[in-house]
Amino acid sequence: MLFKEIKGGSLTSPKGFMAGSVSSGLRDEPSPDLTILSGSEKTISSGVFTKNQIVAPPVILSQRHLSLDSPIAIVVNSVIANAVVGMQGMEDAEKMASMTAEHLGISKSQVLVCSTGVIGVPLPMDLISKGIEAIELKEKGHEFARAILTTDTRTKEFAISVDISGSEIIISGTAKGSGMIHPDMATMLAFLTTDADISQECLDRILRQAVDASFNMVTIDGDSSTNDSVIFLASGESEMGQIQGGEEEKIFQEAVNYVCIHLAKEIARDAEGATKLIEVIIDGAANLNEARIAARTVASSTLMKAAVYGNDPNWGRAVAALGRSGIAFNEQTLFLSMNGIEMLKQGTPVKFSKDVAAQSMDTNEVEIYIQLNNGDYSAMSWTSDLTEEYVHINSAYTT
Amino acid sequence: MLFKEIKGGSLTSPKGFMAGSVSSGLRDEPSPDLTILSGSEKTISSGVFTKNQIVAPPVILSQRHLSLDSPIAIVVNSVIANAVVGMQGMEDAEKMASMTAEHLGISKSQVLVCSTGVIGVPLPMDLISKGIEAIELKEKGHEFARAILTTDTRTKEFAISVDISGSEIIISGTAKGSGMIHPDMATMLAFLTTDADISQECLDRILRQAVDASFNMVTIDGDSSTNDSVIFLASGESEMGQIQGGEEEKIFQEAVNYVCIHLAKEIARDAEGATKLIEVIIDGAANLNEARIAARTVASSTLMKAAVYGNDPNWGRAVAALGRSGIAFNEQTLFLSMNGIEMLKQGTPVKFSKDVAAQSMDTNEVEIYIQLNNGDYSAMSWTSDLTEEYVHINSAYTT
Repeated sequence: MLFKEIKGGSLTSPKGFMAGSVSSGLRDEPSPDLTILSGSEKTISSGVFTKNQIVAPPVILSQRHLSLDSPIAIVVNSVIANAVVGMQGMEDAEKMASMTAEHLGISKSQVLVCSTGVIGVPLPMDLISKGIEAIELKEKGHEFARAILTTDTRTKEFAISVDISGSEIIISGTAKGSGMIHPDMATMLAFLTTDADISQECLDRILRQAVDASFNMVTIDGDSSTNDSVIFLASGESEMGQIQGGEEEKIFQEAVNYVCIHLAKEIARDAEGATKLIEVIIDGAANLNEARIAARTVASSTLMKAAVYGNDPNWGRAVAALGRSGIAFNEQTLFLSMNGIEMLKQGTPVKFSKDVAAQSMDTNEVEIYIQLNNGDYSAMSWTSDLTEEYVHINSAYTT
Repeated sequence: MLFKEIKGGSLTSPKGFMAGSVSSGLRDEPSPDLTILSGSEKTISSGVFTKNQIVAPPVILSQRHLSLDSPIAIVVNSVIANAVVGMQGMEDAEKMASMTAEHLGISKSQVLVCSTGVIGVPLPMDLISKGIEAIELKEKGHEFARAILTTDTRTKEFAISVDISGSEIIISGTAKGSGMIHPDMATMLAFLTTDADISQECLDRILRQAVDASFNMVTIDGDSSTNDSVIFLASGESEMGQIQGGEEEKIFQEAVNYVCIHLAKEIARDAEGATKLIEVIIDGAANLNEARIAARTVASSTLMKAAVYGNDPNWGRAVAALGRSGIAFNEQTLFLSMNGIEMLKQGTPVKFSKDVAAQSMDTNEVEIYIQLNNGDYSAMSWTSDLTEEYVHINSAYTT
């Protein structure tokens, strides 16, 4: 294996990063809800953000700081999204940045801000402000991973080491998933660190490509949020010199993709009410864009997701979803299998035992494979099954 | 009121139509599953069909017959969709058309064919063939409405009379909704009849516009089907002369819209597992297309639908969905109310009693109104709430 998992790794596994968190009082019970991750002065950063037109002020502020400066620190609060609260929102995001900057002795534009949680509720800035002052920075990446959670049932962390031109580079990531209880916690956040020395341009390119192949291929319920952010910090503190284009960049890209895909699958696996991870593979598409659209459309079918929950080998729902994806294909060349069991070949149903297929689906990972036989491109998308528990969680406020 | 509802009306209320049905044996228990509607030789017809790329053979055949001829009869079977069954599918659809043509003494290209039900299962043509021969045509529009149902819990019929230039015109419609149990019954069918005398060109135009304002604004789970069809037959047997452009066409268009919107709302109300009809109104959009996209996107949010089920006045979910719709608007001018209770004004949350709002939602119709303040166009979309029962129904095949 080219990449080696670092067991128990966290965002502070790569050299040059510190993190810490506090329980500032945003949750009903005491539990970490405010956290800072910081690199050193040499750190460079890149970010990819929500495409939703309703953008939370912390996202706007972070985008601005990334264009003005190369931020080296991130402050994150969970529980409250600081979104759709009128003018107050930007003032509060600015305050979070300046207080964090003061606390760390850096300039305000070196700080990125992320918030996740309920929409339409202003931040209690007295709690946030006391909280930021109380954060002690140590090598506490796990604390960071815990503090950013909302309705996630577990932390999501993954770190690997990769050998590039004889030097060991560490890449680490943590994420929180799409969960919403009271009333709206639709936010995916992910943070990546590495000790690699890398140019700004290369970091931007690599992050964009990794996000497209991973987080942008996860769909839980089709709702994008106002706060989605993926941030990548590179400290440059590895022994190795700067990563060069060509082979080195290629290996680094693959390693970052590997970390992001791992986290993306964790998000799908831990989605609200989920009992299963569903992996949709589209093969034989005319181009990458069509492969991705097709994979995402099939993965977003609530009917397919409900069928998988019930161990129902209902391939017709996957095919109907493919049909509405808008990509070009020929019904007569379609091939489909679920968990390796052939169900459709050259557009014609294959006889298979429904009981055997249902049994093979009665596990926590289901693979739907579709071969379009229309070209050389493929893509994967991940989602969870749709369960009664999902509906229960998302309709919980009942009089 | 310009339009007068005809209580107990059916597709055979307008002059010039006959219908009949049989229980051919497609269902487990005896119940109508095969039906024919027929006009007279003077009848003209128009159709609008699924945009899914996987198109069922009966849809392809009906499109061909509409381009070759002006069909005057429709044969419909429920239970089996005759979709994704390989080459067999087109042969069977052709056979249904020719057997119906023979039974009625008309030519094959005068017959439209619709099928709805499970995907991937071939039609038992022996049952269909005996069934068609046994159908007696009378004024039995209600039988037609019953025979086309799949998982619908009730028939959906609506007929009105409208005064145009001093003559009474009757317009009637029936529909079946989107329901899927075993394994795939994702089909919306609707049939309209009128005794109006109208040109082909005008009928086509009016049907397309009515469908865009009604059936195309219903979203249950985002999955379009392989068989969706809306067919309009005009017998021309009213006392009135041919409908002229201008004012007469305008009134007729409004009347057809009125029937289609009524049926569209019935489909949403009777969606799988639904306890509520949700009406999303977008006002103040820059153009009609954007208004419709926005309304449909908000209506398709599973998070919003789950919240409405739980009587949760969770306006943040509607706003987040609006944000991902891709239409242009300004967050600072947004206004939102639910069941008339103001929740967002100029992009800033309004204080309201959650308990009062939740109580107002504890009924079978919930209205979400969004004013964009960005233009003069508006649109409505309809959906149902998302319930545990929906998931249960759609995951029913469990080992």
